[in-house]
Amino acid sequence: MLTTLAWTLPQWQSAYHNGTTPDHLLSALVGHLDPQDPAWISIATPDQLSQQLVELALKLEQSSGDISRLPLYGVPFAVKDNIDVAGFPTTAACPAYAYKPKADAHTVALLKAAGAIVVGKTNLDQFATGLVGTRSPYGAVPNSFKPEYISGGSSSGSASTVARGLVPFSLGTDTAGSGRVPASLNNIIGLKGTCGAMSIRGVVPACRSLDVVSIFALTLDDASMVFELAAQYDAAEAYSRQAPTARPNSFSQGPRLGIPASPQFYGDSVSADAWESTLAQWSDLDVELVPIDFSPFSELAALLYDGPWVAERHAAVEIFMRDHGSEMNPVVRGIIEQAKKFSATDAFKAEYRRAELRRTIEQIMAPLSGLLVPSAPTFPTLADLLEEPVNRNSELGTYTNFVNLADMCALAIPAGFRSDGLPFGVTLIGRAWHDKALQTLAQQWLATQTLTLGATNQSVPASTPISPEVAPGYLRVAVVGAHLTGMPLNSQLTERQAVLVEETLTAPSYRLFALANTTPPKPGLQHVTDGSGKSIIVELWDMPIEHFGSFVGLIPAPLGIGSLTLADGRTVKGFICEGWALADATDITDFGGWRAYLAEKAAEKAKA
Amino acid sequence: MLTTLAWTLPQWQSAYHNGTTPDHLLSALVGHLDPQDPAWISIATPDQLSQQLVELALKLEQSSGDISRLPLYGVPFAVKDNIDVAGFPTTAACPAYAYKPKADAHTVALLKAAGAIVVGKTNLDQFATGLVGTRSPYGAVPNSFKPEYISGGSSSGSASTVARGLVPFSLGTDTAGSGRVPASLNNIIGLKGTCGAMSIRGVVPACRSLDVVSIFALTLDDASMVFELAAQYDAAEAYSRQAPTARPNSFSQGPRLGIPASPQFYGDSVSADAWESTLAQWSDLDVELVPIDFSPFSELAALLYDGPWVAERHAAVEIFMRDHGSEMNPVVRGIIEQAKKFSATDAFKAEYRRAELRRTIEQIMAPLSGLLVPSAPTFPTLADLLEEPVNRNSELGTYTNFVNLADMCALAIPAGFRSDGLPFGVTLIGRAWHDKALQTLAQQWLATQTLTLGATNQSVPASTPISPEVAPGYLRVAVVGAHLTGMPLNSQLTERQAVLVEETLTAPSYRLFALANTTPPKPGLQHVTDGSGKSIIVELWDMPIEHFGSFVGLIPAPLGIGSLTLADGRTVKGFICEGWALADATDITDFGGWRAYLAEKAAEKAKA
Repeated sequence: MLTTLAWTLPQWQSAYHNGTTPDHLLSALVGHLDPQDPAWISIATPDQLSQQLVELALKLEQSSGDISRLPLYGVPFAVKDNIDVAGFPTTAACPAYAYKPKADAHTVALLKAAGAIVVGKTNLDQFATGLVGTRSPYGAVPNSFKPEYISGGSSSGSASTVARGLVPFSLGTDTAGSGRVPASLNNIIGLKGTCGAMSIRGVVPACRSLDVVSIFALTLDDASMVFELAAQYDAAEAYSRQAPTARPNSFSQGPRLGIPASPQFYGDSVSADAWESTLAQWSDLDVELVPIDFSPFSELAALLYDGPWVAERHAAVEIFMRDHGSEMNPVVRGIIEQAKKFSATDAFKAEYRRAELRRTIEQIMAPLSGLLVPSAPTFPTLADLLEEPVNRNSELGTYTNFVNLADMCALAIPAGFRSDGLPFGVTLIGRAWHDKALQTLAQQWLATQTLTLGATNQSVPASTPISPEVAPGYLRVAVVGAHLTGMPLNSQLTERQAVLVEETLTAPSYRLFALANTTPPKPGLQHVTDGSGKSIIVELWDMPIEHFGSFVGLIPAPLGIGSLTLADGRTVKGFICEGWALADATDITDFGGWRAYLAEKAAEKAKA
Repeated sequence: MLTTLAWTLPQWQSAYHNGTTPDHLLSALVGHLDPQDPAWISIATPDQLSQQLVELALKLEQSSGDISRLPLYGVPFAVKDNIDVAGFPTTAACPAYAYKPKADAHTVALLKAAGAIVVGKTNLDQFATGLVGTRSPYGAVPNSFKPEYISGGSSSGSASTVARGLVPFSLGTDTAGSGRVPASLNNIIGLKGTCGAMSIRGVVPACRSLDVVSIFALTLDDASMVFELAAQYDAAEAYSRQAPTARPNSFSQGPRLGIPASPQFYGDSVSADAWESTLAQWSDLDVELVPIDFSPFSELAALLYDGPWVAERHAAVEIFMRDHGSEMNPVVRGIIEQAKKFSATDAFKAEYRRAELRRTIEQIMAPLSGLLVPSAPTFPTLADLLEEPVNRNSELGTYTNFVNLADMCALAIPAGFRSDGLPFGVTLIGRAWHDKALQTLAQQWLATQTLTLGATNQSVPASTPISPEVAPGYLRVAVVGAHLTGMPLNSQLTERQAVLVEETLTAPSYRLFALANTTPPKPGLQHVTDGSGKSIIVELWDMPIEHFGSFVGLIPAPLGIGSLTLADGRTVKGFICEGWALADATDITDFGGWRAYLAEKAAEKAKA
C-alpha cells in the first residue's frame, strides 16, 4: 500500500531514475492520504497536485530534462499549516484566522525549485503555541506508536506524517521546541538549524525574533540534504542571517559534550532510565561527557513562556484576538493573554537578563563542543494533557525552550526505545552555525544504533559515507614536516581549529630535503620535472579559511604556501620551498617522508 | 594660568619627561578648578587627588620607574557623573539618587591603569536624558564660546571642561548623541565607538542595550589613543563585545560617503550654510559624496524617544522614580514617564521595525564607506530651551539618534565656524568596528583645516603621521606581477577589501622572470644569494587576514606565498616561485619590474 511506502530521498530518486513518473507516483500517494487523519489540515486536491506537476515539468525542461539537476525531483513533502504554500489556505490551526497566501514561503519556494511537491498542510498546536499536538480544532494528533499518547507539538502533523512514512520529509517551525519534541516522540529526525539560517518569510509568527523553520525526516542524510537546499540568506526578511564563511563540518576529535548534572524527568522514571542507558552508549563513542550545572539554561528556558516573550505571540495576533478571541483555542488564548501583564519596561528588563544568561552560557560552553540532552523529559498521554494542559506542556520544554534564546542550533535524533516500547530521543545542541558539525556527530551515533524508520517497521538504510570534500569556508593544506601530527609546529594547525583529514602521498614528482639551519628542523619539498621525483608522505588538514592568513603569516623563508599535486591527481595547497635554500640542504627523498628521516637520525644518535 | 593650559597628551607627556611631577602639576591644576563652574558636579579633594597619586607612584614602581610604560602617566581627565569613580559619589545629576560606588567603572579603571588621574566628575542632563546640558539641578552648562548658547548634552560638563582646556580628555556617555552633539557645539572631538567596544560596567544606564561610553578630546590623536586603551572586552558585562579579528585602519582610496539628500536644519539657515560650505571643502578631498534618501535613518532615530526604548530609561530608575519622583528634573521625569504608555507587545513590535530598518540601512550602506552628516542641525540658546524644552532637544538628535540602534560607530569632528562665530561640526558614521577607518579619514579632513583647540585660542598641533603599521587583523603582502594596480588579477585584492599601502623595492637580491605559458602572463621572483640580484618594484597591500586564505587558494603553481625582504630591511609576505618553472622562463631582471617589461613588450608589438 502506497501510504506506507516510507521511502527515503535516495529511494524516491532511484524510482524516478528507473523511469517512474511523478504524475503516476504522486497521484497514487495523494489519493491514499486520509482526509480524516488529524495530522492533515488540508491535502492537495488533484488540481493543486497537477498544477505543481506542470511546474515541475517546466523546471525539468529548463534543466535540459536531466532529473539529477533537481535534487528533490518529484519528492512529496508536507508543510506545517503556519507556513504559506500558494494555493493552500494558511490556518495556523485557527479556521477563523485562515487566509489564502499569494506566494510560497521562502523555504517552500526553495524546496519546490529543487523539484519537491507539496502534498498537504499539517496540523499543529494553534498559532504554534504548545509542545503537545492537542491544541487544535482539527483534533489532537495521536502518537504514531501508541495512539493514547501525544504526538508532541506544535508541529504535530508534520512529525506524524513523516513518522508513518507518508512523506519522506516535512517542514515544521520551532520556537520553543516544536521541531524537536514531536521528532523525539515519533522516532524521527528533527533538525532545528541556526536561527536565521532558513528564512521565516511567509511563516505566521509565534515569536518572530525567535522563530525557526525546522525539518523532519526519516533519516539524517535526508534532513541534512533538505537543510542544505533550504538554508539560504533572504535579504527580504529582517531576521535572516548571512552564514559566516567558516562553518565546521565536524568537531575536533574526542568532542566534549555537556550533559545536565542533575537531569529533571518530573518523576518519569521510564524516561530517566532510557537516558541513563543512552548515556552509557554515548560513552562508548569517542566522546567525553561533562556534567554541567544546567541552571542558567533552565532560567533562560523559563523566560520564554513565563516572561515577556509571550508578548511576541500577542504582537502576532493582537488584532485578530481582539476581534475573534472566542474563536481561539481557550488554552492558547489564555497563554497569549498573559502578554497583557507585561510592560515595555518588563520586556527590556527580561532582555537584560537574557543578555546576562547568554554571557554565562557562553562561558559554560567555552570548553565544550556542544550539549547532549534528552529531547523530552516525559511522555504524557492525551488524558494527562486534558487534566493539566499547561504544566504538562511546560515540562516538555525543559531541554528545548532555551535554545533559540541562546542563539544555538539543535538536532533531535532517535535514541532507541523506552522500556514501555515508546521511542526515546536525544538532542545535540551547538553554537550558532555548527549545524553540520552536529550532523556529523549525530551520524556517528546513529551508525551504532539499530533503528527503524519512524513508526514503520522498515530499518534505516545505511548512511552514505560522510563527504570527504572540503567544508565550506575551509582550505585544505598538505603539510610535510614540522607541522605533522606530533611534530613541534602541529599546534599552529590545531590552535586554528584545523582538522586532520587524511595521510596520503604526493605525486611521484617531488624530492625532499632537510634544510640547513632551521629551528625546529624543517624539510623543503622540491617539485622536479626530470623524472627523478618520488612520492612523499603528507598529511592533509582542513583549516577555517579565515584563520589561514594568520597561519601563512607564521611561515618563515625559504618556505611558503603553494600548490602540490597528490598521488591521486588532486591539487591541494601545501608547503613549497624557494630554490636557493636547497643548495646546502640534504637530499632525503629516499626516506619517503620527514618522519622516517627523523627516526633514522634518532636511531643514529642513540647508537652514537 | 594653569586652568587654561589646554595641553594635549603629547604636551603632558613631554612635561613629565622633562622632570615635572604629577604631584606638582595636578595639585596646581585641581587647586584652580572652580567649584562654582556648572561644568563640575564634584572636583577631586586634596585627599582624593593624593590617594590617586600614591597609586600612580606604585604603578610607576611596578613599571620599573619608566614613565613611558604608562601612556597616560599623570594625565588629568574628567568623568561624566553617571560613570563610577571609586571614592566619588555618582549622582547622575540627581542628588537624591546619589550613591558611593565601591569600584571604578571598567573604562575608568583601564585609564587609571595607564596612569591617568581623575580630577573631577562632570555635569550632565539628568540620567543622561537630553542633548542640551540644561536639565540638571547643578545648573545649565553654558556654551564655551558664547554663554547665552547651550553647551549641548547630555555630556555637557565633559565637553565643556575639555573645550576650555581644563583637561585634555574626558569620558561621556552616548546613547542618542550625548557624546557628539556637545562635542560639535564646543569645537572638540567626540568619539563614540562601536557599541560594546568599551564596557558600560559601572555606568548608570540610560538605555542599557544601547549605551556607549564616549571620549571627548582636544585632538583626534588624543581621542584615538584613549580609545585604544579603553576599548577592551569585558566578560563581566553582558553587552561588551569581542572585536572581530579584522578592523580596517582605513577605507579604500576615494571613499564614498553618503550625505542626506535633503538635509533638515529646522529653519537654521546659519547651520545650513555652514553645512554647504563644509561639503564644498570635503569635495576637494579624494572623497565621493553620494546624496542618499535619509528617511530610514530618520524613522529609526524617531523610535528612540517616541518609541518604547524610553522604557529602558524607566527600567533603569523604576524604583527610584516611584519613591522620589518629585526630586527629579520635571522634564526628565516627564520623558521617562512616557514609558508607562508602552506594553511589552509594543516593545516587540518596535524591535521588529528596528530589525527591518537595519536591513534597509544595511542595503543603503552596501556601496558606501560611511556617512557624513552635520553633528547638530541647530544651535539653540538657553532661552530657546526654556521656551520649548522637549522639541528643541529632539531636533538636536536628527543626525545622532539612529546610530546606536543601527549598530554603527561615529566620530564627531570640528568643521570650522558658522557665520555667527559659533563652532560647526560634522560626524562621520561607519559600520560597527570601523572606528579606526573613520579616524584615518577624519585625520585627512582635519589636516586641511585651520583649527583652534576647543574654545581656546591655541592652534591644533600637527598630527603625528598616521602609523604605517599593519592594522590589527590585516596581513601585508607584496605583489610583483598580475596583481599590481591596474593589472588583470588586481581585483583579487580589492574584492577582499585589501588596501594599497605603498609602492617600494625588494632588497637587491632578487631576479625576475617572465614565466612561460601562464594566463594572464605572470612573473616569478627568484631570491639569489650569489650577488647577481637586483631590487625589483613591488606594491604592498594590506588584506584582512580572514580573507587571505581564500586569496592564497586562488594562486596556481608554480607560484605561492612566502617571505620577501624589502630594500629597507623589512620582511613581508609576498609571491615566491618554485624553481622548476624558472628553467624555461625569460630573465627580465634588468627591467626592474613587471610593468616596465610589459611596456617594452607592448612597444615592440606596436612597432612590429
